[in-house]
Amino acid sequence: MPRSVAAQVEQRLNSLTKPTGSLGRLEEMVVHYCRIKGNPMPPMPRKGMFVFCGDHGVTEEGVSAYPREVTRQMAANFEGGGAAINVLCRHYAIDARFVDCGIGRPTRNLVREPAMTPAETAESIALRRRMAREAAEKFDAAGIGEMGIGNTTPAAALFSVFAGLPPSQTAGRGSGLDNRMLLHKIAIIEKAIALHQPDAANPMAVLAALGGREIAAMTGFILGAAHTGLAVVLDGFIVCTSALVAWRIDPTCLNNAIFSHCSAETGHGRLLDHLGVTAYFGFGMRLGEGSGAAVMLGLLDTALRLYREMATFEEAKVAERVQ
Amino acid sequence: MPRSVAAQVEQRLNSLTKPTGSLGRLEEMVVHYCRIKGNPMPPMPRKGMFVFCGDHGVTEEGVSAYPREVTRQMAANFEGGGAAINVLCRHYAIDARFVDCGIGRPTRNLVREPAMTPAETAESIALRRRMAREAAEKFDAAGIGEMGIGNTTPAAALFSVFAGLPPSQTAGRGSGLDNRMLLHKIAIIEKAIALHQPDAANPMAVLAALGGREIAAMTGFILGAAHTGLAVVLDGFIVCTSALVAWRIDPTCLNNAIFSHCSAETGHGRLLDHLGVTAYFGFGMRLGEGSGAAVMLGLLDTALRLYREMATFEEAKVAERVQ
Repeated sequence: MPRSVAAQVEQRLNSLTKPTGSLGRLEEMVVHYCRIKGNPMPPMPRKGMFVFCGDHGVTEEGVSAYPREVTRQMAANFEGGGAAINVLCRHYAIDARFVDCGIGRPTRNLVREPAMTPAETAESIALRRRMAREAAEKFDAAGIGEMGIGNTTPAAALFSVFAGLPPSQTAGRGSGLDNRMLLHKIAIIEKAIALHQPDAANPMAVLAALGGREIAAMTGFILGAAHTGLAVVLDGFIVCTSALVAWRIDPTCLNNAIFSHCSAETGHGRLLDHLGVTAYFGFGMRLGEGSGAAVMLGLLDTALRLYREMATFEEAKVAERVQ
Repeated sequence: MPRSVAAQVEQRLNSLTKPTGSLGRLEEMVVHYCRIKGNPMPPMPRKGMFVFCGDHGVTEEGVSAYPREVTRQMAANFEGGGAAINVLCRHYAIDARFVDCGIGRPTRNLVREPAMTPAETAESIALRRRMAREAAEKFDAAGIGEMGIGNTTPAAALFSVFAGLPPSQTAGRGSGLDNRMLLHKIAIIEKAIALHQPDAANPMAVLAALGGREIAAMTGFILGAAHTGLAVVLDGFIVCTSALVAWRIDPTCLNNAIFSHCSAETGHGRLLDHLGVTAYFGFGMRLGEGSGAAVMLGLLDTALRLYREMATFEEAKVAERVQ
């Protein structure tokens, strides 16, 4: 019977000149990545980063520390190469793509009406499903990030509905709300959920009522990447909310997902727990844009280089353990 | 009054196009490094790695999972480029130096007699003080690592004496002891401390009785680097034990030290607490060789590139917070 990829990878890891398991999380990354690729010795990954950008009508309720115009301004910053994600992608040799999901055309205000129509939602998903399948031809690992002023509000609303948690447990400070504004944001989410009475058993309808275009796009990308062999490296709270929606649509779709970091946004750790997954690191980041996913892709390169280039005990003529 | 370097760095960090503080630990690294360099915009660091290797007579007591010959074999592996630290230094563009501190000439067995004479100890320290001062001419940041079969035993003994902790709280599994061997190792350390009755107020004498040549060498390097402006990036438990000895000799010597990671070796977290410092990450590594320090140097490069290359709100014409 052929051994599993994970067993082959572990055998090689244990043959390398180091105490067994002594590279800790770096060894786990190698096993995880090779298992996703179905290859015990994959080439160094061709790395992409997809940053989905959208605007949100709910910003008119004053739920963000920054004005809505910042979405467009930050998109211009991405084009100019001056944002955090540009620097990280240059540093780690990641090919970055910025995906316009309706910048300047905000979704409707979810506290008054459904954010998107069912048709808009389905279209966003279908479009980015195709994008993921194309990405799988070009890249071995793709980070997913987002940027959209106000988008922690729909993300927390979606998490609340699917996990059955009150907004006080899913909403956080986003880009930096004070206590008063955080309470206001929680009240807005409560009001939106009371208005739409969403049914968690119908994830497409929940996404239409409470989501946003970039959240739908990332949901589509995750669904499209599933079963292609592309390793999908997820960033923070909003990206993981898209993963939650995708998971409710297709419970097998996260088999190729790598959860990079646990961010400082309040709901993120709870969301990772809800998904039953563990992130690889926690540096207290809460920037979005795919920044945590980019750092993860850098660490994955480090881990894979160790795995590929270290000498074995036999090659280096180093004695193995005595006990 | 001129503003402090830290205040200048924080002002620039807060002017960059991201929510305030949203790069988490990466921002802390930038402030820390710039403060050490006394420069609010230091150049990208020229990076060195010094791996101190030595042999220990106490291995004849069976305190390690690997035979003593492995020290020499691993030193040959370093020369051949096949060890973890070689791969990491190539990957992160770190200039690696391997320092022979008596490979094949083990210290005396500390459970029977003092490991080193006072003269040997002083000589090791003086020699590597000079090495650190030379390193400060060539590098901006230097990692410190070690390799020496058996060296977690003297390290735990030293930590026990200086912190007044029983060996059961300072000794760990090293390169992979089972429960029975760990209990044996603890008993050996207890016996050594009972034999020498070391006086924590005389750190040079404690180091001679219970230390090792690479531990003395790293102590000297840390003392020599102090007040030169060289940023010293410390690796795991054994390196931090040298930092503890150095700190007992000169309480100001850690002002330029960066504690990279908290390893999986039992005593390391407790030792960091004892020193009153916080490590930047914990990936469950316990390999030694400077491996955690190398990953830290890689993350420091990432953090500094973000700091240097990100656009400010003004440059990118992005609006600042509304509240």
